Amino acid sequence: MTIAVLFGGSSYEHEISIVSAITMKKVFKHNQLKFIFVDSNRAFYAIDSNNMKSKYFASGEYTKAKKLSLDSKGFSFSTFLGSKTFDCDVFLNLIHGRDGEDAKIASLMEFYGLPYISPRIEASVMSYNKLYTKHFARELGVMTLEYQHLHKNDKRELRLELPVIVKPSRLGSSIGVSIVKTQEALDYALDVAFELDSDVIIEPFVEGIKEYNLAGTKTDRWELSLVEEPQKEAFLDFDKKYMDFARDTQVLQASIDESLKAKLHESFKRIYDPLFLGSIIRCDFFVVDDNVYLNEINPIPGSMGNYLFDDFEAMVERLAHHLPQEKPIAISYQYIHSIQQAKGKA
Amino acid sequence: MTIAVLFGGSSYEHEISIVSAITMKKVFKHNQLKFIFVDSNRAFYAIDSNNMKSKYFASGEYTKAKKLSLDSKGFSFSTFLGSKTFDCDVFLNLIHGRDGEDAKIASLMEFYGLPYISPRIEASVMSYNKLYTKHFARELGVMTLEYQHLHKNDKRELRLELPVIVKPSRLGSSIGVSIVKTQEALDYALDVAFELDSDVIIEPFVEGIKEYNLAGTKTDRWELSLVEEPQKEAFLDFDKKYMDFARDTQVLQASIDESLKAKLHESFKRIYDPLFLGSIIRCDFFVVDDNVYLNEINPIPGSMGNYLFDDFEAMVERLAHHLPQEKPIAISYQYIHSIQQAKGKA
Repeated sequence: MTIAVLFGGSSYEHEISIVSAITMKKVFKHNQLKFIFVDSNRAFYAIDSNNMKSKYFASGEYTKAKKLSLDSKGFSFSTFLGSKTFDCDVFLNLIHGRDGEDAKIASLMEFYGLPYISPRIEASVMSYNKLYTKHFARELGVMTLEYQHLHKNDKRELRLELPVIVKPSRLGSSIGVSIVKTQEALDYALDVAFELDSDVIIEPFVEGIKEYNLAGTKTDRWELSLVEEPQKEAFLDFDKKYMDFARDTQVLQASIDESLKAKLHESFKRIYDPLFLGSIIRCDFFVVDDNVYLNEINPIPGSMGNYLFDDFEAMVERLAHHLPQEKPIAISYQYIHSIQQAKGKA
Repeated sequence: MTIAVLFGGSSYEHEISIVSAITMKKVFKHNQLKFIFVDSNRAFYAIDSNNMKSKYFASGEYTKAKKLSLDSKGFSFSTFLGSKTFDCDVFLNLIHGRDGEDAKIASLMEFYGLPYISPRIEASVMSYNKLYTKHFARELGVMTLEYQHLHKNDKRELRLELPVIVKPSRLGSSIGVSIVKTQEALDYALDVAFELDSDVIIEPFVEGIKEYNLAGTKTDRWELSLVEEPQKEAFLDFDKKYMDFARDTQVLQASIDESLKAKLHESFKRIYDPLFLGSIIRCDFFVVDDNVYLNEINPIPGSMGNYLFDDFEAMVERLAHHLPQEKPIAISYQYIHSIQQAKGKA
């Protein structure tokens, strides 16, 4: 099948989306990949596979690529005689952060009736905003660490004990995240986070807390990845995360017992089904005293978490055949017709 | 100023959106209105103001209107020599139900950087899905009636006492809503609702409960409407609601005391700010024993609730000057450049 990877976007994670997309070239071996770049002005470009090199984008050379337009007939490009459809079987949304994870790309795909692998609109909003993730998890009975939400206009009174971790509500890839150990550092950390977002989540920072990542999807069956214990040095900064997005070799299963594994699987499934149908997500969990806490949902994980799966490519193919479909709505104008009739105007 | 009204959409409420849009023609007296029709296939048409009659759409005559395309330069139409921008100062999203209220139109406007009056993405998701509205209200400390959520795959066990009201989670205008008084009627009501939505909300049906509607927005000030006690015959069915969408004459303030009015205002503000900035919404409240309960948020109320305001048109103008702006993100490719440098490829 032909899979079109959407990447770039008007996002703080624009560059790591490019890295993720380049990684896909190595990961897909049997299917044809096409690439659609969304530049910072939200223009779409069809990128030749040979040009999938980071420098091509950083240098602005991409502006020489074919520009695509998008409407209810899908993506197309201008030709000498008119326009030609950009053909593919499915789109893979690989835009990290804004545009890709905040429901914009999902909305475009849905509005124009294109088949796509990505969290849908509601799933995007519930996972992109960490505050909503907390509410959502709680409603499902999945535990999260305690937290405090601050809006930029709120008084900066800390309810939690130090040390804490301060995160902008809506960004990924550790951007704007600080570990705060002293009261003096708090203000600066909040300034940094509020520079990026109107809302901030503050959580207790637990040194050495056990962390496990689990990715997955649901096709005609559950397809869960192995459980990874991510490498941690306090926490990954953006540079390290950046390199992390280029991963394409499989990792080792964390050494955990079957009972903990079952708990992680159970929590993942509860979060995933049915809201995240159509997507491949990664859930990052904390484990304290054998209890599982949801840390974050990664709605569009770096390089799609390919390195966590046995056969990532075959799974994507299966998912492409099990995507949620928007319900068709027949519009008959029966009310207008009946009112016209009542008025004698039919 | 020139205001472009977006209406239609692939929605069960497509027809009442047409009625709402036609009503705007009567309501706006000082500003220029333009009209963009979204047909059931998600094609955009610029509709001449003289053609704003329901029959024009029901007959399919609208397909002769100018087709618009949408991209990062905004809406435009083809001309003999190329293309011409569709000019306006602000867009008014008047698509009820799917497309308009589920974040798709908001996403398109946001993605392409167009100024628009409408709930933004997160606000749309929180109000379009009645289940999320319940969660959201609870987090804000605004009370709602008790309720039960059923997914279509759940066992149909009723936890509430009869009579109840059964509503599809994501539709408006009373579509698919049933009052259920007997156990036998429940299954049929659920069948009807699940025909339209994968999720259903069940609430106690309280005969003669006091209901009050309050609309509003925030510009450089709070702009709250008068409080209306809506007419009720058990509840409005679709035909009556349909006519309701054509309202353009001001209603009377409900006879309530100042203390209740203050409570309604307080609840409205708590819900509205900051999530709904940029929109004009109507909140429908129940009052039991002087306690205020949120029933529903109408993110795009029928004919924008114009009949609830003293000077609707002036308020829309003020709102157009106080719209939330998406944060610009500068993309510098600094990480790619630094990695290229490290590799000696810069």
